[in-house]
Amino acid sequence: MSRIAYVNGQYRDMRDASVNIEDRGYQFADGVYEVCEVRNGQIVDYPKHMKRLQRSLSELRIAMPMPLSALQIVVHEVIRRNRVGYGIVYLQVTRGVARRDHAFPIKPVKPAVVVTARNLSFTKSQETAAHGIGVITVPENRWPRVDIKSVSLLPNVLAKQQARENGAYEAWFVDADGLVTEGSSSNAWIVTKDGRVVTRSAEQGILAGITRSVLTDAMAALQIKFEERPFTPQEAYEAAEAFVTASSQIVMPVVRIDGRNIGDGTPGTVSKRLREEFHRFSSFS
Amino acid sequence: MSRIAYVNGQYRDMRDASVNIEDRGYQFADGVYEVCEVRNGQIVDYPKHMKRLQRSLSELRIAMPMPLSALQIVVHEVIRRNRVGYGIVYLQVTRGVARRDHAFPIKPVKPAVVVTARNLSFTKSQETAAHGIGVITVPENRWPRVDIKSVSLLPNVLAKQQARENGAYEAWFVDADGLVTEGSSSNAWIVTKDGRVVTRSAEQGILAGITRSVLTDAMAALQIKFEERPFTPQEAYEAAEAFVTASSQIVMPVVRIDGRNIGDGTPGTVSKRLREEFHRFSSFS
Repeated sequence: MSRIAYVNGQYRDMRDASVNIEDRGYQFADGVYEVCEVRNGQIVDYPKHMKRLQRSLSELRIAMPMPLSALQIVVHEVIRRNRVGYGIVYLQVTRGVARRDHAFPIKPVKPAVVVTARNLSFTKSQETAAHGIGVITVPENRWPRVDIKSVSLLPNVLAKQQARENGAYEAWFVDADGLVTEGSSSNAWIVTKDGRVVTRSAEQGILAGITRSVLTDAMAALQIKFEERPFTPQEAYEAAEAFVTASSQIVMPVVRIDGRNIGDGTPGTVSKRLREEFHRFSSFS
Repeated sequence: MSRIAYVNGQYRDMRDASVNIEDRGYQFADGVYEVCEVRNGQIVDYPKHMKRLQRSLSELRIAMPMPLSALQIVVHEVIRRNRVGYGIVYLQVTRGVARRDHAFPIKPVKPAVVVTARNLSFTKSQETAAHGIGVITVPENRWPRVDIKSVSLLPNVLAKQQARENGAYEAWFVDADGLVTEGSSSNAWIVTKDGRVVTRSAEQGILAGITRSVLTDAMAALQIKFEERPFTPQEAYEAAEAFVTASSQIVMPVVRIDGRNIGDGTPGTVSKRLREEFHRFSSFS
């Protein structure tokens, strides 16, 4: 089956789904995006993703390309046309097409919208989670505005590639103070030996992850101890457990950091429990 | 006359010139670019631009999309088809089209190539230079790999926009040590009261500008004193002259920084001389 994308008002076969070369997303990384999990054809925590999208756009002073209600219809139509049961939906909005000039177009242009969706293998995701993933740490080298979910992702690309070449799945950035900020496409978490779940505050040099936010609600309800503070790689090496969160992975156990086993080198009980219980606390649209 | 672009093997009308939505330039800013000046239909300092392009690609491990000789034919054809006498040619290379995943495609894909060109008004450029431009200073907030001329330009976009909204033409980034790095799309220079031309070393947190490089050769030949070192905004305010260099502007006098007049608030004699003499020291292809 060929995949279908929504591009600026039209549903197109992926092969023919294109944007103008002067789309500012292409020439300036002048755009933002969201990735949502799809389960049983429904979008997980969609309102939170839309709230964050609106914030990212607002920070860059890009207008919402269409009313939220219309966008939701489009997103669902892309999921339907691609027959996505379990998978992800991707949504990108850029400032639009204008003759190349760094500053915003003087005469405002229509923002560009792209929506794609695809199935993931549920079995494969579960297998990955059952084994757990490896992580490496790399120096933080992104710009400070990582609170904006922009497509300016080149440092993330290079970090992720470095992870892959080191037999790992994710790279955690470590800031100038020696503290982990977040992963190249996920938030970073540890579980201390006395059972406290620790992650950095969303106010400090990281993206406010949606899965991260839902998980903190889940932990409150499950009466799991939670500390919002940064941690060092060394503390992570010595932690009982570690995991990452992202919409496409929910809670993914980390069993190795910089080549060192975390705990006994298998997914921890808290991580597994949070992964299992997560969707009880998320919304479906 | 409609503009023509070269896109991945084809010459297309700009309105139909498009790239796939999964081009990694669009989703990850995973690409690089060059802008060259065109004079009398010839490209200024083309070999230097190609050498820098090769370096940028090499740093990102993107393959050259075609032999340099073939690329030069394409670039000239785009200039010819757009009847560019005086103007610019723009060249962008991205890692290519692949299903969205931060890491490099496991099965390498063909890099994508876009070339555009357009006329500029020579009269307007000269008028702008005759008046000089205003500059503001902003905190440096780009990632450290600005030596790679990547399309990850969102911080540059925001800085340039801030300049425009403050009645200025360019923004100079100032690093954590209080020293000017470079402009959002240019290198930054001052001329001290005793006639020394000063700009930051290309080794330290800036892009190795081609115009910058040719200008240093020009100054040596013209026996103009030159110091390669960083300077503060305060030193710039008190300088005899200031200017910026970029391929699209060559030497552009700066007459105002953060609202303060530089010198007597008109383009300085050294800046004007360097602008006039520049092309004696550049190559034409």
